[in-house]
Amino acid sequence: MVKLKFDAELGRLAANTIRFLAADGVQKANSGHPGMPMGAADMALVLWTHFLKFNPTRPDWPNRDRFVLSAGHGSMLLYSLLYLSGFDVTLEDLQSFRQWGSRTPGHPEVGCLPGVETTTGPLGQGFANGVGMALAAKMTAAQFNTAEYSVLGTHRVFAIVSDGDLMEGVSHEAASLAGHLKLGNLIYLYDDNHITIEGDTALTYSDDVAKRFEAYGWHTLRVDGHDQQAVADAIEAGIAERKRPTLILARTHIGYGSPHKQDTAGVHGAPLGEDELRETKRNLGWPEDKMFYVPDEVRTFFRQVVEELQKEYRQWEEQFRAWQAAHPDLAERYRREMLREVPENLEELLLQVHQDAPKATRALSGEVMQVIARKVENFVGGSADLAPSNNTYLKEFDTVAPGSFRGRNFHFGIREHGMGSILNGIALYGGFIPFGGTFLVFADYMRPAIRLAALMEQQVIYVLTHDSIFLGEDGPTHQPVEQMASLRAIPNLTVIRPADGLEVALAWAYALRRKEGPTALILTRQKVAPLSRPEGFDPGLVLKGGYVIAPENHPGRLELVLVASGSEVALALESQQKLQDIGWSVRVVSMPSLEVFRAQPEDYRRQVLGGTEVPLVVLEAGVSQGWFEALQRPFRMIGLERFGASAPYPVLAEKFGFTPDAVVSKITRWFSR
Amino acid sequence: MVKLKFDAELGRLAANTIRFLAADGVQKANSGHPGMPMGAADMALVLWTHFLKFNPTRPDWPNRDRFVLSAGHGSMLLYSLLYLSGFDVTLEDLQSFRQWGSRTPGHPEVGCLPGVETTTGPLGQGFANGVGMALAAKMTAAQFNTAEYSVLGTHRVFAIVSDGDLMEGVSHEAASLAGHLKLGNLIYLYDDNHITIEGDTALTYSDDVAKRFEAYGWHTLRVDGHDQQAVADAIEAGIAERKRPTLILARTHIGYGSPHKQDTAGVHGAPLGEDELRETKRNLGWPEDKMFYVPDEVRTFFRQVVEELQKEYRQWEEQFRAWQAAHPDLAERYRREMLREVPENLEELLLQVHQDAPKATRALSGEVMQVIARKVENFVGGSADLAPSNNTYLKEFDTVAPGSFRGRNFHFGIREHGMGSILNGIALYGGFIPFGGTFLVFADYMRPAIRLAALMEQQVIYVLTHDSIFLGEDGPTHQPVEQMASLRAIPNLTVIRPADGLEVALAWAYALRRKEGPTALILTRQKVAPLSRPEGFDPGLVLKGGYVIAPENHPGRLELVLVASGSEVALALESQQKLQDIGWSVRVVSMPSLEVFRAQPEDYRRQVLGGTEVPLVVLEAGVSQGWFEALQRPFRMIGLERFGASAPYPVLAEKFGFTPDAVVSKITRWFSR
Repeated sequence: MVKLKFDAELGRLAANTIRFLAADGVQKANSGHPGMPMGAADMALVLWTHFLKFNPTRPDWPNRDRFVLSAGHGSMLLYSLLYLSGFDVTLEDLQSFRQWGSRTPGHPEVGCLPGVETTTGPLGQGFANGVGMALAAKMTAAQFNTAEYSVLGTHRVFAIVSDGDLMEGVSHEAASLAGHLKLGNLIYLYDDNHITIEGDTALTYSDDVAKRFEAYGWHTLRVDGHDQQAVADAIEAGIAERKRPTLILARTHIGYGSPHKQDTAGVHGAPLGEDELRETKRNLGWPEDKMFYVPDEVRTFFRQVVEELQKEYRQWEEQFRAWQAAHPDLAERYRREMLREVPENLEELLLQVHQDAPKATRALSGEVMQVIARKVENFVGGSADLAPSNNTYLKEFDTVAPGSFRGRNFHFGIREHGMGSILNGIALYGGFIPFGGTFLVFADYMRPAIRLAALMEQQVIYVLTHDSIFLGEDGPTHQPVEQMASLRAIPNLTVIRPADGLEVALAWAYALRRKEGPTALILTRQKVAPLSRPEGFDPGLVLKGGYVIAPENHPGRLELVLVASGSEVALALESQQKLQDIGWSVRVVSMPSLEVFRAQPEDYRRQVLGGTEVPLVVLEAGVSQGWFEALQRPFRMIGLERFGASAPYPVLAEKFGFTPDAVVSKITRWFSR
Repeated sequence: MVKLKFDAELGRLAANTIRFLAADGVQKANSGHPGMPMGAADMALVLWTHFLKFNPTRPDWPNRDRFVLSAGHGSMLLYSLLYLSGFDVTLEDLQSFRQWGSRTPGHPEVGCLPGVETTTGPLGQGFANGVGMALAAKMTAAQFNTAEYSVLGTHRVFAIVSDGDLMEGVSHEAASLAGHLKLGNLIYLYDDNHITIEGDTALTYSDDVAKRFEAYGWHTLRVDGHDQQAVADAIEAGIAERKRPTLILARTHIGYGSPHKQDTAGVHGAPLGEDELRETKRNLGWPEDKMFYVPDEVRTFFRQVVEELQKEYRQWEEQFRAWQAAHPDLAERYRREMLREVPENLEELLLQVHQDAPKATRALSGEVMQVIARKVENFVGGSADLAPSNNTYLKEFDTVAPGSFRGRNFHFGIREHGMGSILNGIALYGGFIPFGGTFLVFADYMRPAIRLAALMEQQVIYVLTHDSIFLGEDGPTHQPVEQMASLRAIPNLTVIRPADGLEVALAWAYALRRKEGPTALILTRQKVAPLSRPEGFDPGLVLKGGYVIAPENHPGRLELVLVASGSEVALALESQQKLQDIGWSVRVVSMPSLEVFRAQPEDYRRQVLGGTEVPLVVLEAGVSQGWFEALQRPFRMIGLERFGASAPYPVLAEKFGFTPDAVVSKITRWFSR
């Protein structure tokens, strides 16, 4: 049995402090979710004061434990714990919960306060982020620790997860993978409060949760979530279990202590109300009129906890310095990787990839990735069971496997959503540049995770292949049509669809240098020829998102601009040729990234697209949506505003009008010279 | 023990016929997935010849069993079974697999051939569709059967599901709900072949699948999937189990019989190759040189099976006629519901909903839904645990609960993806107009199912509330910004964002009348005022997608058109007033649906938007993407090209420039009169 650092009375007092900081914060904001923090206060208190390793003055301590509040609607629980634990969080922060410009938004957002490890709220995401963090920790430990020194990645990942997290499919995907990989450093507390928004969980949820997680290979335990001693013992047992992730099923009462609202859906997402808040305080022996009250003994207790933790931190720091001194090479590598540095001559290196034969851009991407893997040691990733199709396997490196974390390839299984969310966890952990592959059409399955990568400004790279109807025979279920548009709509996601080997190399360089958000690379299944470019072409132009790949043959007489991306650039060039044969003077613009082009200065954009009087035609095998925002003037689209069809891709090209003849015929019908 | 209708030799012959029809089809197409049909042929044979109830000449027999090939890449398995079972499928159909215009696309698409019950391929979807069908069957039975007659919904739903289906999160969500609801009419065969594209499933998958499904409340059995007798006995046991769904874990060998490729990933997604195909035939004692060969005894056997089934069909038909005669009211209701008829005066009925006070459009929608529920008896649905927020509960009707299917409300739990896919299954089943609710931002979670509803042309209605930053304090994780654009990008999905009660009523009418695809209703959390419209306004104009809600005050002098949707229409009207006060002549266009407006004749669109010389400004709290396609000319956007923030919504309106003053100030800066 764990020896608790507090007697029952202090434990009760401290848990109630958390409860009422949260309930008061919600009441003052007149908005928020008091029930979850009130129910989870006991277990959160035990975790944060007895087990969680952190240093409030060094919140970026790399070997700190990670804490994920997957049930992000209980944000005031986390904010209260950070405040009590001495992080740079003020009472004013708690009092300005959910207000404009405050550091305490409705749901925890990474970066809003020190100690917030990830952005949660969309259910299931935090659960899977934690799996990514636990995996990253194991990999970090495998890469950097030595026989004498265990200084990195030796900590644990804790989370509080809810019914909602466990009902969401992404938790299934991530839990299955965590069990498979034997992530013994993962300890999750399930806030089993029996209540969701619509009422009792029994309305819709009969899972035997322990059995389900045992089926995934997890270690499970059941406790009364208000019995602090029992919670402590369970966490201790979870820590002791090194080979399996642990799920502690903690039976709690939502809105604990509220005379009229405990155990009801009414306390989930609305303030208690002044009267009920007062009655709850009375009920729990709390001063009724005090708001945001912290008893001195509670404050003192948290201070003592932090002092102890800081001792541990200093011991770690000493060890870390000794490790740095003993292994300067490792230490230098670690520094570099934490900064996610890439070689200065990255573009040059990647452009050396052999490019003279027609190849699919997915194949070219695979070749570029081999070079990256050699030069960028923290470049890690995998595919959702499509590595041979996505060409994402790093051939010279091992695979991460159960209990074995030195590899750099993952097998994510057929779990796109889990993959996306685990990639976010790896990126949040720090020190890695993670990538994940699937078919472009299945980006839909992981869209909630892509959105969060963009919102959290995390560097995650998506390798999305089979990018159009030209995947052919698999048919419309597998043919993306609207996916490029829908990805381009996500703020802070950069989408790049390269046209040939040169653009593939530079797309990868762009993605590797882009630290402030995710990048999606959109790649063909079918072969594309290397494109010819004007003599003395500056490859740097590709990084402007759009550039003139073939100028008009009568300079000064520009009659049409053809803009295309990816595999349609070759079609644009062929069409240009045919139009020139019949006397037109046509320019072709390759536009691999609409977002990047749109961010260029207006004069560059005008220079590329010509004057507003010149007709524009866009060629892209997808819906037209999104192009106007990049071009900022009217255009004609040769695209596809319908779903595709099953047939060999040259037939589809013919039937859907993606041949030079069809393009030329449309253009000459639309415009007269 | 089940008495098999064939001896071992005929059973082997029949299974091999299926195997080689599939392998030959893939070989001829030089594209496709032979391994799965070859591995699953034995169990599929047993199911189709001993248990599955169907009538090839009446493929729409309402009380037929449903068969879902969730592992849709094995499409040739299904096509071969349909061919052998006498459906309207020719040898030429099998021989033109995956070709342009053929009826046998790469993955099964509902409608391509009679007997294809759903479109599969994106993994996990078929699994969840089947749950929807089983639920629909139970509800149909509860509504229409009587003490003497059990003629509808008394059949079963079978599926073949794969590793991939079970790894996908959506299968977890649907399985959990199926177990909870005790769908004893569901019997799934798990094609447990240990192989995925990247190799052995052990690379990534250690679930104890039986235990996992038992945790969901399923009945599970294990068999050798090539032991036809054992498969038959397991299916029999599954049918006998009435209170729980059944999962039969059938160990199979992918590419069964192929000397060099059985049990390898190589046989999953590529033709065997001519040599290996020949060797496989030799290995299984099959004529080496024959392609698409069906032995006479196999043909005769399938004919006998069908003859027996047709006897059953005729018995059913007799019963059905007797039921019709005994219960003309029920029969008439059934006829109406199968056609998904709605009252002729639907618009009139819905417009009667009280509209004079400011209300959130979600609340107005909730009121309209009560009226619909009274008049449209097959209008059923629920929310992913947000019914009180989505206002989707049909108050006068019961809830579907374990073992009780007379209700019309579902509790889907926090399972958006499962919900979307189950709704598809209900729609495919026929006779229902299903709806599902969640927050707009979480439409991302069910996007793969929405796409399939659009592709399958199914009438499913999404109630998506909390439609912008104006949900306020919950912050950017919950504030949709790009979701409207991303939904508008999906072909054949109609998105409608009504501005007030009148538009809400008509949006619902539109969705109920739209049989050929899904409709998404986008609704506010915050209150909006009922809008004033010109005297004698014809509400029918709303159904054109966009209309002049407030003409310019100087007819003949149109200086600006403000186009807005949803809650921003009120803002546009206020801004118009302010601009008129300073001398501008401004028109306001309400555009609830870009897709519907875009489909109007050009002269109507020009009439609404004015001449091309008139400046256009669009007001919508979201990314601008998508508007150009509706307007077909340049415009200025007052939107949001970034994620939102946590604060009360009037503060956000102020900070993000959604106030009349901010709008007027932008407009007067952009344009001079």
